[in-house]
Amino acid sequence: MAIEGSSTEPREKRIRLGMVGGGSGAFIGGVHRMAARLDDHFELVAGALSSTPEKAKASGLELGLDPSRTYSDFKEMAIREAKLKNGIEAVAIVTPNHVHYEAAKEFLKRGIHVICDKPLTSTLSDARKLKKLADESDALFVLTHNYTGYPMVRQAREMVANGDLGAIRLVQMEYPQDWLTENIEQSGQKQASWRTDPARSGAGGSTGDIGTHAYNLGAFVSGLELEELSADLDSFVEGRALDDNAHVMMRFKAKDGQRAKGTLWCSQVAPGNENGLKVRVYGTKGGLEWVQADPNYLWFTPFGEPKRLLTRAGAGASAAAARVSRIPSGHPEGYLEGFANIYSEAARAIHAKRKGEKLDPAVVYPTIDDGLKGMLFVDACVQSSKRNGAWIKV
Amino acid sequence: MAIEGSSTEPREKRIRLGMVGGGSGAFIGGVHRMAARLDDHFELVAGALSSTPEKAKASGLELGLDPSRTYSDFKEMAIREAKLKNGIEAVAIVTPNHVHYEAAKEFLKRGIHVICDKPLTSTLSDARKLKKLADESDALFVLTHNYTGYPMVRQAREMVANGDLGAIRLVQMEYPQDWLTENIEQSGQKQASWRTDPARSGAGGSTGDIGTHAYNLGAFVSGLELEELSADLDSFVEGRALDDNAHVMMRFKAKDGQRAKGTLWCSQVAPGNENGLKVRVYGTKGGLEWVQADPNYLWFTPFGEPKRLLTRAGAGASAAAARVSRIPSGHPEGYLEGFANIYSEAARAIHAKRKGEKLDPAVVYPTIDDGLKGMLFVDACVQSSKRNGAWIKV
Amino acid sequence: MAIEGSSTEPREKRIRLGMVGGGSGAFIGGVHRMAARLDDHFELVAGALSSTPEKAKASGLELGLDPSRTYSDFKEMAIREAKLKNGIEAVAIVTPNHVHYEAAKEFLKRGIHVICDKPLTSTLSDARKLKKLADESDALFVLTHNYTGYPMVRQAREMVANGDLGAIRLVQMEYPQDWLTENIEQSGQKQASWRTDPARSGAGGSTGDIGTHAYNLGAFVSGLELEELSADLDSFVEGRALDDNAHVMMRFKAKDGQRAKGTLWCSQVAPGNENGLKVRVYGTKGGLEWVQADPNYLWFTPFGEPKRLLTRAGAGASAAAARVSRIPSGHPEGYLEGFANIYSEAARAIHAKRKGEKLDPAVVYPTIDDGLKGMLFVDACVQSSKRNGAWIKV
Amino acid sequence: MAIEGSSTEPREKRIRLGMVGGGSGAFIGGVHRMAARLDDHFELVAGALSSTPEKAKASGLELGLDPSRTYSDFKEMAIREAKLKNGIEAVAIVTPNHVHYEAAKEFLKRGIHVICDKPLTSTLSDARKLKKLADESDALFVLTHNYTGYPMVRQAREMVANGDLGAIRLVQMEYPQDWLTENIEQSGQKQASWRTDPARSGAGGSTGDIGTHAYNLGAFVSGLELEELSADLDSFVEGRALDDNAHVMMRFKAKDGQRAKGTLWCSQVAPGNENGLKVRVYGTKGGLEWVQADPNYLWFTPFGEPKRLLTRAGAGASAAAARVSRIPSGHPEGYLEGFANIYSEAARAIHAKRKGEKLDPAVVYPTIDDGLKGMLFVDACVQSSKRNGAWIKV
Repeated sequence: MAIEGSSTEPREKRIRLGMVGGGSGAFIGGVHRMAARLDDHFELVAGALSSTPEKAKASGLELGLDPSRTYSDFKEMAIREAKLKNGIEAVAIVTPNHVHYEAAKEFLKRGIHVICDKPLTSTLSDARKLKKLADESDALFVLTHNYTGYPMVRQAREMVANGDLGAIRLVQMEYPQDWLTENIEQSGQKQASWRTDPARSGAGGSTGDIGTHAYNLGAFVSGLELEELSADLDSFVEGRALDDNAHVMMRFKAKDGQRAKGTLWCSQVAPGNENGLKVRVYGTKGGLEWVQADPNYLWFTPFGEPKRLLTRAGAGASAAAARVSRIPSGHPEGYLEGFANIYSEAARAIHAKRKGEKLDPAVVYPTIDDGLKGMLFVDACVQSSKRNGAWIKV
Repeated sequence: MAIEGSSTEPREKRIRLGMVGGGSGAFIGGVHRMAARLDDHFELVAGALSSTPEKAKASGLELGLDPSRTYSDFKEMAIREAKLKNGIEAVAIVTPNHVHYEAAKEFLKRGIHVICDKPLTSTLSDARKLKKLADESDALFVLTHNYTGYPMVRQAREMVANGDLGAIRLVQMEYPQDWLTENIEQSGQKQASWRTDPARSGAGGSTGDIGTHAYNLGAFVSGLELEELSADLDSFVEGRALDDNAHVMMRFKAKDGQRAKGTLWCSQVAPGNENGLKVRVYGTKGGLEWVQADPNYLWFTPFGEPKRLLTRAGAGASAAAARVSRIPSGHPEGYLEGFANIYSEAARAIHAKRKGEKLDPAVVYPTIDDGLKGMLFVDACVQSSKRNGAWIKV
Repeated sequence: MAIEGSSTEPREKRIRLGMVGGGSGAFIGGVHRMAARLDDHFELVAGALSSTPEKAKASGLELGLDPSRTYSDFKEMAIREAKLKNGIEAVAIVTPNHVHYEAAKEFLKRGIHVICDKPLTSTLSDARKLKKLADESDALFVLTHNYTGYPMVRQAREMVANGDLGAIRLVQMEYPQDWLTENIEQSGQKQASWRTDPARSGAGGSTGDIGTHAYNLGAFVSGLELEELSADLDSFVEGRALDDNAHVMMRFKAKDGQRAKGTLWCSQVAPGNENGLKVRVYGTKGGLEWVQADPNYLWFTPFGEPKRLLTRAGAGASAAAARVSRIPSGHPEGYLEGFANIYSEAARAIHAKRKGEKLDPAVVYPTIDDGLKGMLFVDACVQSSKRNGAWIKV
Repeated sequence: MAIEGSSTEPREKRIRLGMVGGGSGAFIGGVHRMAARLDDHFELVAGALSSTPEKAKASGLELGLDPSRTYSDFKEMAIREAKLKNGIEAVAIVTPNHVHYEAAKEFLKRGIHVICDKPLTSTLSDARKLKKLADESDALFVLTHNYTGYPMVRQAREMVANGDLGAIRLVQMEYPQDWLTENIEQSGQKQASWRTDPARSGAGGSTGDIGTHAYNLGAFVSGLELEELSADLDSFVEGRALDDNAHVMMRFKAKDGQRAKGTLWCSQVAPGNENGLKVRVYGTKGGLEWVQADPNYLWFTPFGEPKRLLTRAGAGASAAAARVSRIPSGHPEGYLEGFANIYSEAARAIHAKRKGEKLDPAVVYPTIDDGLKGMLFVDACVQSSKRNGAWIKV
C-alpha cells in the first residue's frame, strides 16, 4: 500500500495551497480541504474563502489561517501570493461555476497551479478561453472529476485498456439524485439556489452538475470519444429554469473498427436515489459494472463465465487500483479517499514540475481537456434538446 | 393465500387446453405447460406440438396426450376439437411469432379462447387483423406478458394507481441480456435462429423479443400511455439482420396535467446480464424499483423518508399482491409462479364466461390491446431508427 | 433443461397420490400439492385431509377429489386404498408432527410409498420405531427437507464433494425468522398454536421446526456427520413452552483427517427475518455461501481469487444443478420449484421401483435416516440445554 | 455537517501528537496518521516509530518529522517530550500488543494523553495494571475500537437506547476473515508473524485481534453487559499456536427484566471473507443489522413493518450519526472516516481538558474500561475453551 506517499517516494515538502470559495455554509470547499489533507501533500496557507469580507475573515479564522493571508478578493490574493517568498504554489477553486473562469485566469497567468471544481465554467466561451490560457501557462490545471479517483474506477479503465472486455460496444451511464424533487431553491436552500440559476450555474442544470460527471466517467473507463448525441432535457419542477432531468443517446467514435453507443440518464428528481452514479461497459468479450455508492466493488463478467466481484485491494485488484489504495480489502474507502487521490495525483505532477522531472505515466488526473469536453457535452445536450433531439456532433 | 383457487372460489372443472407449438427442443412451451398446471385450473388434452408429423406425435406421447388428439396441423386441430363434445376450450399458442396470427385466427373464429405468447405477431398488419378478429370473437384473447403476473409488479401498479408516488414523471425501463453476444445463430442454435430471423420474428429483434416486455411492464406499472418515441437501434454482431440493442427515449401522454418521460434500453449483447429486466418509476412523491431477477422484492421510497424493502406476502404487501401470492414471505416465488398467475387470471375470466357472470374487476391480464401496443412500439422503434432517431408518434 | 421429465425420460403414467392432512387453513398441504403437480409426475386422487368429517369432505370437494375417496380417517384410507385396483401408490403426510408416525405406519405396512413432512415425528421414540418400519418396508420413505431440492444447493454439495473447497473446516448455519416475536399462539393463530405446543410439535420448538432444516442443509452440503453439540435454548416469549431461539455449537466427525466445526442459530423472534435460512461452508481451498431467500445464487470463492456469483442455469452451473433446473438463467425459480424437485426425485425412485430397475445414482432425496438424524439433533439440543450446554454426542 | 469541526466549534490549536510504532511496513500506523489528519485536530510532531534506530530515523524522515524529535526508544521520547515547551500533548501507540502496556505507562505517568490501538495489552495482568494507571492519571486513555466511530453504528446505538427495538433479546456478532487460511506466518509475512505469536499478541489469536472488535461493537450497540460465555476455540492451521477460529455463546446481564443472549463467531480461515464484521440486534419491537463492509447502510425493521434501509446523512439519519458525518448521503464514507471520528472525539475531550470544561455528553469514545472488558473476554474465551466450553463468568 502506498501510505501517504511515504513508502514509495522520497518525502517532499508540503505544497502550499490557497483556496477560492469554500467559506462556511459551502459544501465542496470542506471536501477539497479534507481531500488535500488526507495524504499530507498539501498545506492550506491562504484563502479568499468568500467575497463578503467579514465572512472571508471569519472563515479564515475558523480554518486557522494567518489573517494576513485571508482575502476577500481572489485577484488580490493571486497578486499578493505571487509576490510572497513562500506564497501559494497551487490554488483550489471551489466557487459556483460562474466564478471559475475569472479566478482560474488570475492564478494561471501568475504560474500558480489550479485545482478547479467541475464543471469547468458556466459558459462554453469561458471554457474555450480558459483552455487557451491553460495551454499557454506553465502551471498545471487539474479538474476535480473526483469519481475517476476511485481505485475500482482506475481498475475498470485499466481492464478495458488491456482488452479484457474485447472491443467496446456499449457504455451505459446514469446519475440519478432526488434532492431537487421539490422546489427547494425557492425557499432559499443555498446549494439549490445557485445550482438551478443559469447566471451562476450555466446553461446546464442536472447536465452540468452531474451529467458531466457521468459522461466523464464513461469516457474515462471506456477510453472512447463521443462523436454525437441526441438529448431530451426537461425541467419537471414548475418554475425551474434549468434542466433537472436529461435523457441522452450517444454515439462514440469507432475504435479499432468497432462502433460503440451509449445512453446517459441524469436526474435530480428521482426519489430514492441519493447519489446514484453508475457506469456499465460492455464489449465483445465481457462486461463491467461500477456503482459509486458501493465504490469498493467492481463487477466483471468475462462472457460465458460466472460474474466476479472484484474488490479494492482484494484478490483480482490490479496495479492501477493498488497504487491509489490506502488500506486492505474489506476496509472500505469512500468518496473522500477517491477525491484525495485526485489531489495526490496533482501533488505528484507538481512535484515533478518542481524537480523538472518527467511525470510517471501512471499518474492520471482530469485536465482542462476533460473540462472542455464536459462543457461541449452540456452545450450539445442543450442544443439537441432545443432542436427536439436532433443529433449534435460534439 | 389463495391456494389453488380452492379456498376462495367454488371448485370449477379444469379447463380443457390445447397447445400449438411447444414440441421437444422448444423453451417456452414447457413453461406454458408448467404455468397452466401449477394452480390446477387447466388440463392439457390436445396438441399440434410440431408441424413435423413424427415430431408432433413423439412430443404428444412424451406429454401423455391421447394420440387421437395429437395433430401436426393447427387448423385441423381447431376444426376437429371444435366439433368434439369435450373438445378444448382454450388453446395456448407458443410457436415462433410468424405463426401466431394464422393459428390464433383458426381458434378465435371457432370460439376457442386463445392464450398467446408475445409479441403478438410478426407484422404490424397481422397484429391489426388479429385485433379485429379478437374484438369480433366471443372468445377471450390473453397475451402472456408474463412479467405482469409477478405479485410485486401488481403491487407496484396498485401503489402508482393509489397515488403513493404522486404524479408520475419518469419511467425507466431496461432489459439487458447477453446470450446473443456472439453469432450463435450461425452455428444453428435453435432459439437464436428464429429469434434473429426477420421472416419468423418480424421487424424487431431485441425490441420485439424483450423490448416489448420492458415497455409493457413500464406501461402496466405506471398506467401511462406512450405518445412518441425516438430510437437508435443497432445490430452489433456482424451479419445479424435484426437489432440486438436498442436505445429508446420516450414521451408519455400527460396525465392529470403531469408530463412524463422515460427511456428503454434492451440488449442481447451485454455480457453479465442474464435476464436483466428492471423498471423504475418516479413521481412527485416517491419512487419504485423492481428487478425481475429478484422478484419478491419491491423498493419503495416515499420522498424524504428512508427506503423501504417491500416483500411478497410480507409486511407492507398489498391486496393486489396478496391475491396472486401462494406462499408466505421469505419463501421465494419465481418466474413460473408469475407466469402461472397469468394462466390463473385467464382461468378466472374463462370461468366467468362459462357462467355468464361479470368478471371480478381485480382480475387483470394482458389482452390483444397490449399486444397491438407492443407491435406499434416495435414498428415505431424501427421507423425512428431508420430516420436517425426522429420522434415517431405511436 | 429437463422439462417435465419429458425430454430425457420415457413417459411414465402419473403416480396416484393420496394426502393426509392439508385441509383448508393448512399451509404446507397446498405446497405439497403444487409441488406434486409442477412436473406432472403425480395425480392427487384421494385424501384424509382433515380428521373432522365435514371439513374433510369440504376440502375434498374443493380439490375436486372423488367423494368416495375422501376420508376423515387416515387408517381407513390406507386400508381401503390398498385394496382398490387403482388405489394410491404414494401418500403425502402433511399433518402436525405428532400424527406423522401413526399415519406413516399405516401406509408403509401396506406397501404404499410415504412422502412425509419434517420433522420426522414428535418424539424420538416414534422416530426410532418409524425408522425400523421404513427399513422393513418395501415402500419408499421420502422426507420433504425441501431445501435440499434447490438447484444451487445441489451444486454446493457437488462442489464440496468434488473437493473444490478442499477439506472442510467450518459449517455455519442459520435460520432466523420473526413470526413468533409476539405471543400469537395465545390469540389462536393456527400455525402458531400447534407449532408451539409440545403435544403436537414435540420437544423442539424452533429447533424442530426450522433448526432441523438448517442442520439438514449444512450436513447435506458439507457431507459431514455431526459428532456432538452444545446448545443454549431459550423461550424468549413469556408463556411459551417450547424454544423459540437456539444457539448451538457443533463438532463434526473428522473427514480425511480434517477436524470440522460449526454453529447453528435458529430463531423465531428475530424481527426483520422472514425466512432467513443460510448456509456457509469453508474449507482449506475455498468458501461457499447460499441464502434461501435468493436461491438462484451461490457465492463461491476459491481462496486467493475473486468471489464468483454462480447462478442457476448460468455460466458455472454444474450437472447436479442442471438436472433439477427447469428454465434458463435469469428467470428465477423459487421455493415451490425446489420442493417440486423432491417430489420429482421421489417419482423417479418410484418409477424405478415399478420397473424393478436400479435407481440412477444422481437421484437424491432426504430419507428416513435424515429424519432420524433431525430428531437426534433436536433431542441433543434439548438435553444439552438442560445440562447448561454440556456437549452431547449425537 | 460538522466539517473539520470548524463550523460548529471555535477553532482550537492543533493537538501536538507523537507516535510509538508505525514505521515503514506497518499497517495500522499509517491508518492512525490519516485518521488524525482528516479533521485537522492533530499535528504529528514526534515519533518513536521503530525500536531499530536506523529504521526509526528513516521513517521519521519519510514522514517529515524534525530529526531531533525522532526517537528509537519510547521511554526516551516520553521523558524528553514531557520536558519540551511544545512537547507532545498526546501519543498514539500502534505497536504490536505486547508493547502497549510499557509504552502507555511511560506517557500516562507524565500526563500525556494516550490513544492506543486494541487489544489493550497482551496479558490480562498488564491490562489490570494499565487500568489502574489510567484511572490514576489525569491524562485521557482512548482505545481505538474504531468501528464504534462509524456514523451508522452510532445511530444503531442511539436507536437501541431510545427503545426503538424494545427490550433487547439477541445480539449476534460475527467477524470472519480469510487471510490466515494458509500458514503464511511461516513464510515471514510480518503482520501474520506477530499476530499469531503468543509472545507478541497475547493469549488470543482471532479472539484478540478481531473477536474483541466484534464483542465491543455488540456491547456498544446493544448497551448490554456480558455476564458469561461458553467458547470453542480452534487453531485449524497446522502449527499455529493461537486460535484462528472461535465459536462463542454468550449470556448478557438482564436489563429491565429482559434476558438477552448472543453468539460471536470470529475466524481468520473463512475463504471469501475479507473483513466481514457484522452485528445484528433483535428486541421485542424491532431488529437492526449493520455490516462493516457497507458501512453507510443500516437495516432497521420495526416488527410488523417493512424493512427500512437507513443511510448515513440520508432520510432517517439521527443526531448521533449526523454529528460524526462529514459529507452528504450517497457519498460513501469509509473506514478511515470512522477511525477519524475516534480521533476527533479524542480531540474534543482533550480540548475540554485544556479549557477545564465539562465534556459534551454527546462525545463518545472507547476507554480503558472497554479495553479491559476486551481482555476479560479473550481470557474467558481461552479458559472456557480449555474447559470444553464451560460457562465462564466475565
